Amino acid sequence: MSETVLVDPIALEAFVAAAFEKHDVPAGDARVVADTLVQADLWGHQSHGVLRTNWYIERLRHGVMSPVATLDILRDKGCFAVVDGRESIGQVVAKRAMEMAIGKAKAHGVGAVSVRNSNHFGTLMYYTRMAAAQGAIAFMTTNGGKAMAPWGGAKNKIIGTNPWSWAAPGGKYPPLLLDMANTGVARGKIYLARQRHEKIPFGWALDKEGAPTDDPQAAIDGLILPMAQHKGYAIATLMDVLAGVLSGSAFLSAVNGPYHYDKRSGCGHFITVYNLGDFIDPDAYNQRIEAFIEEIKSQPLAQGTSEIFLPGEMEARAHQRQLAGGIVLPADTWKELSTLAGETGTAELLEQARK
Amino acid sequence: MSETVLVDPIALEAFVAAAFEKHDVPAGDARVVADTLVQADLWGHQSHGVLRTNWYIERLRHGVMSPVATLDILRDKGCFAVVDGRESIGQVVAKRAMEMAIGKAKAHGVGAVSVRNSNHFGTLMYYTRMAAAQGAIAFMTTNGGKAMAPWGGAKNKIIGTNPWSWAAPGGKYPPLLLDMANTGVARGKIYLARQRHEKIPFGWALDKEGAPTDDPQAAIDGLILPMAQHKGYAIATLMDVLAGVLSGSAFLSAVNGPYHYDKRSGCGHFITVYNLGDFIDPDAYNQRIEAFIEEIKSQPLAQGTSEIFLPGEMEARAHQRQLAGGIVLPADTWKELSTLAGETGTAELLEQARK
Repeated sequence: MSETVLVDPIALEAFVAAAFEKHDVPAGDARVVADTLVQADLWGHQSHGVLRTNWYIERLRHGVMSPVATLDILRDKGCFAVVDGRESIGQVVAKRAMEMAIGKAKAHGVGAVSVRNSNHFGTLMYYTRMAAAQGAIAFMTTNGGKAMAPWGGAKNKIIGTNPWSWAAPGGKYPPLLLDMANTGVARGKIYLARQRHEKIPFGWALDKEGAPTDDPQAAIDGLILPMAQHKGYAIATLMDVLAGVLSGSAFLSAVNGPYHYDKRSGCGHFITVYNLGDFIDPDAYNQRIEAFIEEIKSQPLAQGTSEIFLPGEMEARAHQRQLAGGIVLPADTWKELSTLAGETGTAELLEQARK
Repeated sequence: MSETVLVDPIALEAFVAAAFEKHDVPAGDARVVADTLVQADLWGHQSHGVLRTNWYIERLRHGVMSPVATLDILRDKGCFAVVDGRESIGQVVAKRAMEMAIGKAKAHGVGAVSVRNSNHFGTLMYYTRMAAAQGAIAFMTTNGGKAMAPWGGAKNKIIGTNPWSWAAPGGKYPPLLLDMANTGVARGKIYLARQRHEKIPFGWALDKEGAPTDDPQAAIDGLILPMAQHKGYAIATLMDVLAGVLSGSAFLSAVNGPYHYDKRSGCGHFITVYNLGDFIDPDAYNQRIEAFIEEIKSQPLAQGTSEIFLPGEMEARAHQRQLAGGIVLPADTWKELSTLAGETGTAELLEQARK
């Protein structure tokens, strides 16, 4: 058996969407989930790609996530809104909340949307990019399942990686997309290393005894370290205030990650979108951001570097390459998708995705 | 001569304010600048405290900063505004912009203010804390003088440390205050290592050829590295888009730091304030944030740790202690203030500040 499988992204998305439809997710929403997962693979973020399909399906099967989205708008006034996701699929909730924030920004200059009782939604930049594509700057954060101890604490994981994203239009260049977890490394990368049967670098995590480890399973059972020491802890804390405390959702140890199949997530999100045209003439912005990008790109290179990248540029490059050449999936991921295909009578669709 | 001088914060502030008044700054604005500087000392952030008094005074003397603030409101509509600081004192501009953003948040739920042509204003948390004190959550960033190369670049410093802050009310506890630069280490720590003839750890800086170095002098002649490797670079980049590109202010290498006495700053700021009461019942928020803080504070401690701190808690502790016991200033700082006192005929005021 080969260790990787080359897959066509369009056909892969059709398979993933079908698998969700078989679990009572309406066709349009199934497409949204499938697109977010395949898009993460296209960007080269396999840790947030289709390897997560089965996790989300398991959550639907256990009834802790609702296949049919039933969002409740609790408050909605001018430039802000508060939304209850009512345990709906995170991707569907996040996309609708971002659309709402963009609409508010277009109408009022700024749009802020607070979301409670949602679910894990994949990569943040999928949603902040939506705003950038419509001439807006966006900020978004979410809280997540417990991954870190507070700085100075031991043993107990109580704080999520609580990632956050900023996106800004790049003029004639790809949008600038920042998307980062506050751990030294995204939790998904440790799961990916386990999937690939690879070691992880020392410095990413501690085992459950508090000792440094290079074993992904020991890291998953232990503690992931924050980025930039206490700074990552401090940022994760404030992101939980925004996504959890302010939104009326769960926070700290009460939030569950997507791999706890039988537990409701309780996670919340927080979004702010700024409409460019209300702050500056859009043509002036484009000229300025292009000059900004060009000054950065034209700098002399450090030893061992072939090019300077803007945030999001590597992902844009990977997207173009894999859209044409196909996505290389780990064999384990393909095997899990095959099992799902067998269970849902979609084996033919999955087979069509093999390049 | 002793190496430190114990100083009364109230009297120190009166002296600093008088020194600014002697340079044609209106009394109220002189008080604002003095308060921001003494407050930084009270928080234990001496690098941003009264040692900077002479830097700002020099900028007034060189005419690159205006003693009388003449802000121009370029756009002002509902929840957002764009302000031209017209080279006024950064602290005065930042405080007025934050007041404007708080007012907008109180009226509309959210307030966003973009600021161009301002000056260095000290610590961000001075301003975001103002919002937290009025039942609001605040975000603020600024760009600054060139300090870092882009990730993968060598030689040329073109990106500022571009610090950013979030503040949130803490209920019956002090507000949560996050305030950080995107460099991995403060420049002052590298100067200190040089003074002590010590090596610095690899990973702090590159020499002027772009190679890793453990020599502090080579680091000073070279480049400081961002926090969390490429992540700090990515954050600094997006903060410059918000504070510089979007605001219509200078960005990247065109911004000058406060110690370039004869150059206009060109820096810009970006603020967003969210009024708590529009998103959640304030009593519910207080209960939730107190539970949040208590869960973090009650975690088991790692070896060598005596207490877990929330972001901003150490500063609140230092403030209380020094407000009562006085601020311990380095003798060099006292000497510089004495020179300024001699030049401005305020020696008696400074002498009254000695405890």
